[in-house]
Amino acid sequence: MKNVAIIGVGLIGGSFALDIKSKYPEVKIRAIDANAKHIQEAIKLGIIDGETSIKELSKEDIVIVAIPVDATIEILAQVLDNISENTVVFDVGSTKQNICSKVKEHPNRRNYLAAHPIAGTEFSGPKAAITGLFQDKTNIICEVEETAFKLQEKVLKLFLDLGMRIRYMNPKAHDKHIAYVSHLSHISSFMLGKTVIEKEKNERDIFDMAGSGFESTVRLAKSSPAMWTPIFEQNKTNVIETLDEYINNLKHFKTLMENDDFQSVYQEMESTNYIKQILNGIK
Amino acid sequence: MKNVAIIGVGLIGGSFALDIKSKYPEVKIRAIDANAKHIQEAIKLGIIDGETSIKELSKEDIVIVAIPVDATIEILAQVLDNISENTVVFDVGSTKQNICSKVKEHPNRRNYLAAHPIAGTEFSGPKAAITGLFQDKTNIICEVEETAFKLQEKVLKLFLDLGMRIRYMNPKAHDKHIAYVSHLSHISSFMLGKTVIEKEKNERDIFDMAGSGFESTVRLAKSSPAMWTPIFEQNKTNVIETLDEYINNLKHFKTLMENDDFQSVYQEMESTNYIKQILNGIK
Repeated sequence: MKNVAIIGVGLIGGSFALDIKSKYPEVKIRAIDANAKHIQEAIKLGIIDGETSIKELSKEDIVIVAIPVDATIEILAQVLDNISENTVVFDVGSTKQNICSKVKEHPNRRNYLAAHPIAGTEFSGPKAAITGLFQDKTNIICEVEETAFKLQEKVLKLFLDLGMRIRYMNPKAHDKHIAYVSHLSHISSFMLGKTVIEKEKNERDIFDMAGSGFESTVRLAKSSPAMWTPIFEQNKTNVIETLDEYINNLKHFKTLMENDDFQSVYQEMESTNYIKQILNGIK
Repeated sequence: MKNVAIIGVGLIGGSFALDIKSKYPEVKIRAIDANAKHIQEAIKLGIIDGETSIKELSKEDIVIVAIPVDATIEILAQVLDNISENTVVFDVGSTKQNICSKVKEHPNRRNYLAAHPIAGTEFSGPKAAITGLFQDKTNIICEVEETAFKLQEKVLKLFLDLGMRIRYMNPKAHDKHIAYVSHLSHISSFMLGKTVIEKEKNERDIFDMAGSGFESTVRLAKSSPAMWTPIFEQNKTNVIETLDEYINNLKHFKTLMENDDFQSVYQEMESTNYIKQILNGIK
């Protein structure tokens, strides 16, 4: 591996660059970014070696597409048009169905691998890039059988070298389940933030009353709207389903309180405490 | 200060004991706990020096009531019946209106201070006690003018020695605002946990897909139902109001998605990003 191109040097693209630089010091990393400042910043931070363009991708061993999922759909076919037969392209988007179907019939489909590393923070841009971000993180790979064997091998080696745990899943199942364990959390957090801000915006000192519990629950409300809007758009059906269930559960909890049925309120919380075991499983 | 009694040696009571022991090594700390195992555990862990009982509280300088808010209401008058004129009693409950009105007419009302240190974790019991838990945390004090001046002085010194920032507020305002910045977060987190568990309980490996975002948002769903049920019961009206607003915001977000109005979805998130400044203010 000598050349890697990264399309989008934000949190995820930049973190890939940092880890690749540290594991394979000989590799040259060039980037493409819609925001010219990001390229300058990433060069300055030592994250990348320089800039490239879609027309120049044929000499790359690996191309990483780390941009919002709508931009990925827009650009992916063009990327596949411009690579050599030894280039493998993967994306890192949080939705997989639309992206996979977009390139289903592309003559270079076998040069593409659909991936979703479950890693990140609520921050964005090159400065948000972190060394070791992917260590022990799950990376969901979809339709692996559609990627050429030699290219699977090349990209899997990279993922393993970066410390990732690989899981295989079809795009439909991915989008359905990720709606529960990721997309819904973001909405619940954004709407919690909204509710509190609306109520308390004129009483700044009220936030002195907020503790680490509020901070943790509302953390995802710092996330980038530019990244999350297209995710919700592309996973609309699944996300609406999870939202319906979530709203119904909240309404039910409210009804129990209105009926002074605090024994059931207790039960609701006690049975949900089971999340402890699940979260221990995550670690 | 020579003697401190702690009623309830859980996370909060135990953490007070640890800090008092380290700041005032001469103080003897005795505890009362409905759970005999907690007393044994706390002695073993070196958190307290021994056990006491409500009848023996007259020699205490400070009595800390750190039990669920319903139990506080049940026991507080009896505690105030059994102290000396130099004893100051404070509770740490997450609701203040009912507790304050319960002892409003008590002849020893001036020996009581209503407090709410905004500190804690999602864990409970003596083992959950942490040194330095209160450092730089806000402590809301209600109806301070109802406490005898000398006793205010004694307890404020303790709070300041433990590193707390003091804020004064009336019980009604406390309960209203804390519903937004604490109680609602707990419900949003519990119901998020419930929604995901209900959907995914037969697919354990789905939780491999859950990342740090889910973990952070659902963390409060590990909290103790025994502590939280009486909080929701005592702050029912305020909590239901926050829940209504939260549910309405979620429904509105869902409607925007259903109408494919992703520009407004973006706006919703972008305006809520303002939470960044607020959270920076917390730290």
